[in-house]
Amino acid sequence: MSLLDFVLGRPMASKEERAEKIGSAAGIPIFGLDALSSAAYGPEAALTLLIPLGALGVAYILPISISIVALLMVLYFSYRQTIAAYPGGGGSYTVARENIGEGAGVLAAAALMIDYVLTAAVGISAGVGALVSAVPSLDPHRLAICLSILLVITIVNLRGLRESGILFMIPTCLFIGCMVAMIGIGVVKALAAGGHPAPVEAMPAMPSATAMVGAWMMLQVFSSGCAAMTGVEAVSNGVKAFREPTAPNAQRSLTIIIAILMVLLLGIAYLCTAYGIGATNPEKNYESVLSMLLRAVAGKNVFYWVSIGSILLVLSLSANTAFADFPRLCRIISRDNYLPHSFASTGRRLVYSQGVYALAVLTAGLLILFGGVTDRLIPLYAVGAFLAFTLSQAGMVVHWRRQGPGHWHSVLVNGLGACATAATTVVVLAAKFLEGAWITVLLIPVMLLVMNRVRRHYDRVAAETASQEPANFRQLTVPLVIAPVASWSRISENALRFAYNISHEIRAVHISTDGETSDTFCQDWARLAEAPAKAAGLLPPELVVIESPYRWVLRPILAYVLEVEKQNPDRDIVVVLPEMVERHWYHYFMHNQRAEILKTWLLVRGSRRIIVVNVPWHLKA
Amino acid sequence: MSLLDFVLGRPMASKEERAEKIGSAAGIPIFGLDALSSAAYGPEAALTLLIPLGALGVAYILPISISIVALLMVLYFSYRQTIAAYPGGGGSYTVARENIGEGAGVLAAAALMIDYVLTAAVGISAGVGALVSAVPSLDPHRLAICLSILLVITIVNLRGLRESGILFMIPTCLFIGCMVAMIGIGVVKALAAGGHPAPVEAMPAMPSATAMVGAWMMLQVFSSGCAAMTGVEAVSNGVKAFREPTAPNAQRSLTIIIAILMVLLLGIAYLCTAYGIGATNPEKNYESVLSMLLRAVAGKNVFYWVSIGSILLVLSLSANTAFADFPRLCRIISRDNYLPHSFASTGRRLVYSQGVYALAVLTAGLLILFGGVTDRLIPLYAVGAFLAFTLSQAGMVVHWRRQGPGHWHSVLVNGLGACATAATTVVVLAAKFLEGAWITVLLIPVMLLVMNRVRRHYDRVAAETASQEPANFRQLTVPLVIAPVASWSRISENALRFAYNISHEIRAVHISTDGETSDTFCQDWARLAEAPAKAAGLLPPELVVIESPYRWVLRPILAYVLEVEKQNPDRDIVVVLPEMVERHWYHYFMHNQRAEILKTWLLVRGSRRIIVVNVPWHLKA
Repeated sequence: MSLLDFVLGRPMASKEERAEKIGSAAGIPIFGLDALSSAAYGPEAALTLLIPLGALGVAYILPISISIVALLMVLYFSYRQTIAAYPGGGGSYTVARENIGEGAGVLAAAALMIDYVLTAAVGISAGVGALVSAVPSLDPHRLAICLSILLVITIVNLRGLRESGILFMIPTCLFIGCMVAMIGIGVVKALAAGGHPAPVEAMPAMPSATAMVGAWMMLQVFSSGCAAMTGVEAVSNGVKAFREPTAPNAQRSLTIIIAILMVLLLGIAYLCTAYGIGATNPEKNYESVLSMLLRAVAGKNVFYWVSIGSILLVLSLSANTAFADFPRLCRIISRDNYLPHSFASTGRRLVYSQGVYALAVLTAGLLILFGGVTDRLIPLYAVGAFLAFTLSQAGMVVHWRRQGPGHWHSVLVNGLGACATAATTVVVLAAKFLEGAWITVLLIPVMLLVMNRVRRHYDRVAAETASQEPANFRQLTVPLVIAPVASWSRISENALRFAYNISHEIRAVHISTDGETSDTFCQDWARLAEAPAKAAGLLPPELVVIESPYRWVLRPILAYVLEVEKQNPDRDIVVVLPEMVERHWYHYFMHNQRAEILKTWLLVRGSRRIIVVNVPWHLKA
Repeated sequence: MSLLDFVLGRPMASKEERAEKIGSAAGIPIFGLDALSSAAYGPEAALTLLIPLGALGVAYILPISISIVALLMVLYFSYRQTIAAYPGGGGSYTVARENIGEGAGVLAAAALMIDYVLTAAVGISAGVGALVSAVPSLDPHRLAICLSILLVITIVNLRGLRESGILFMIPTCLFIGCMVAMIGIGVVKALAAGGHPAPVEAMPAMPSATAMVGAWMMLQVFSSGCAAMTGVEAVSNGVKAFREPTAPNAQRSLTIIIAILMVLLLGIAYLCTAYGIGATNPEKNYESVLSMLLRAVAGKNVFYWVSIGSILLVLSLSANTAFADFPRLCRIISRDNYLPHSFASTGRRLVYSQGVYALAVLTAGLLILFGGVTDRLIPLYAVGAFLAFTLSQAGMVVHWRRQGPGHWHSVLVNGLGACATAATTVVVLAAKFLEGAWITVLLIPVMLLVMNRVRRHYDRVAAETASQEPANFRQLTVPLVIAPVASWSRISENALRFAYNISHEIRAVHISTDGETSDTFCQDWARLAEAPAKAAGLLPPELVVIESPYRWVLRPILAYVLEVEKQNPDRDIVVVLPEMVERHWYHYFMHNQRAEILKTWLLVRGSRRIIVVNVPWHLKA
């Protein structure tokens, strides 16, 4: 077993693809980690903005969470419909493209691609950030830990979708179990205490109010909380990864993910209100909301530490959703010629490896650029997701209306989704514009430009090369052969022998940089090459000697070939290059690499009629 | 004018070589800087070893200098003879090889090559070291300054020998002028004062004696002083660089260099004795001997600073001698197949560029490794030089004895030289063995091994490929063509058209990774390729479809080609590879590079009978 097999797993045959398909349970860690993990930072983000309202602010978290859950519900129903309508994988790109138009599809794709790269970087760095705040001595190694996690996620994803599902199932279950247990215990305690339970441990005092409540503030809180929704699209992109029957399996996965997410969001909001727990200032004595809730409900015991550990794990693994979806998205886009075709080829483990590499490189780039602290990127990434949601929902409305008049119910659900997500996009963009959302607004047109240039290139190449005409094998002309010969050897004899296989018209080109050796060579030529050719009844090879006063060898050969090509406009020019092939790499330095260089020059500078033939001579020495 | 022309000078035609030859005056900075600059550190090295003897020790410097000058005289006469006997460039390598044997020649070459690399590194770092001790604020930039000087010397040498002669003439003249002036003034003052002149400025007090004089100590002092002689070989290596009449011109250069060096060595020794100036401890209040002499003779005025400046310049430029000689030496060795042949090719300015690059890289490596402080390397390098001297002198003795009985006078001179240098080699080796000379002793066998392996490789290649037999053009068989075809396009049509130019027997190989597209392809094949071939009266191309369950494309093609080669032991197998040539570098990512990879695989894994034909398609898009 080779090292590659050990790290990435043995190659899988195409017919093994069915076995690689996943069930609805495996779909939860693969496509749901992004959404679920956001329960750990969505409520926190909303509560942080409520700090200026003091103890009173906490009261607003429950209504805001309810409105977020309502929006989530709308999205759930519309994406359920999308999955059923597009069982071949109906991401925003496909839906928007097929129903609204190419432009809308590409726009959605660009927005989603940006979103996935940011998700991967922010997920890993958030997990490591939580780890570092628990174990501060790890702070100097923050970037190294981020990159190590990235490497693990990359390798697991290159090993295939199923493996990542199995591997990440355990932390996902642990996380869900801990959170549900916390909420369960907390709710029972709260109800038993008549809605005002006493925390097991002392909670930090709430700060006093410094601002008044207002509509704009509530919109900002809402848009911050919406960060919890960015992973909802994932399942609909990956429908094809599910086992038969694909659509119902995918729908079941989506239902479970959304149901759990709703329980978590509402539960956390209720407990915060009941225990009176708000966010703490990130700059002094910071403690995360979930950490406080865990302490308030059950105290700082083993359960606390297990829960905190599962939160860290799930946060850093939330990048996995991006790794599951981004390559699929790229593949669909590249099939429509908007990205290089290599994104569409399946690697050794039946995953779209090129997309995994691209995402890993981009994520690593972001992590290195920001030194592993990507908090500043958070404002950037809800915009892309909600833009894609809106386009997808609007596309579904068109889709149902095209299906005929019987689908008014579906039109209503997706129409409501479209309006809600469009409004949220505007709110998020307005609330986060100055904090960095403007970068997304700038980045999207750049990506659109690049994707359209790629498409145009492929279109032009296709126009130039595609053909369904039968081949034209008439009027074949015998090519003219040019064979550079530096000195007489078995290698040049071998090349000339092959040249006679192709054509009867051979020109041997000899570059003379040194008068003496050239004279000897020319004298020998008649005896060594011309005479035996005549004896074999062949036209003897014509010797062309070119003086090279500046001792260049390749330039005069190239110039001669190009000139001969011009003089023979209707014939192929075949350049026969003898080449020594060394047995050991260190013999490379012993021989000149002229054949190699000339091959490249002729390829780049030549034309369709200049054909390079490489006659190798494998050294035994 | 391109940037390359600006930095390295315009290319020079081979016939311009005569104009690049140098006269005896230009020979002094080119081949003499190493020898002359050693006047600045040879006496100092000897005096440093005399410190333990206190004021008394200085008295020994004059007799020791006289013995060094005597040895120098012997070397001078023998190298004069060598130049006359070997006007084609008679370094130790040539002389030892032609008269003693191959092994002795290679040994001398290895010793000299080590010596030149060390000379270049030590020269530059000594110059920069002197500069830094004058301007201590430059200390942090020591390595950068070293590498900058190396870069300047490299570029000047790549521009041609004459340019370096002209450029370095000025500092050389300045140095010689200052030194001769100092010695002249000093000697006059000393004679006027009856042998005991008063210094213009106060000299540091001599330390009290801590050791007794002994024979071993005197031998060590002598061997340290011999460091001044390492550059003597240079002229005899470079005879071919001189203008006609070469030998007399080279002899004149050598005479001037040796005469000046003798004047400097004796003058410095005499002034040290007269003024009672010894070396100072390098560890506290260090001042170089030449600086003290200059102050004693003329005071710390403009003349002092000009002289010190010229010493710094000449020390750092002494590396130039290595740059003039090392490439010539490598070229002579590579002509005898002991080094890669590229060392023998003349670059754009008629210098042996490869040798200049090699020396620059090795020197830079040493400078970086030692951080620009190469004092520790000094003990390493007299061994190599004296070993080469000895072999050269011994070779000359054999040479004269072969010439017949009339040359007893020459035998005597070279025999004396051989004995003297052999003795010195032993003394230097014994005195410096523990300080580092053992590294040279280890390094030389390694180099001998490498050079012999290189020679053996070239011999084997020659035995395998060299031929003076007329070519065999009988029994040419029509080759079998294999053309990989992925899909039908103008590019594949073009490749098939060319294939019919070569052979009537064509096998089109199609790799099936995806059942659907393969089926379409196979159905089209009859219409698009077979039918027109039949219509043109040709044998239709045989379609070979290979299933690739693991989606590999190149491996099955390679395996098929190798199998076909095995099945047809007496035919050439021609692999026709269509290849798209992109117009812009960024289009590289849009298309697979399979043709490029397959070309390399076939070259490396294939045999002499597998010939690769590259049919290019230059994209207009």
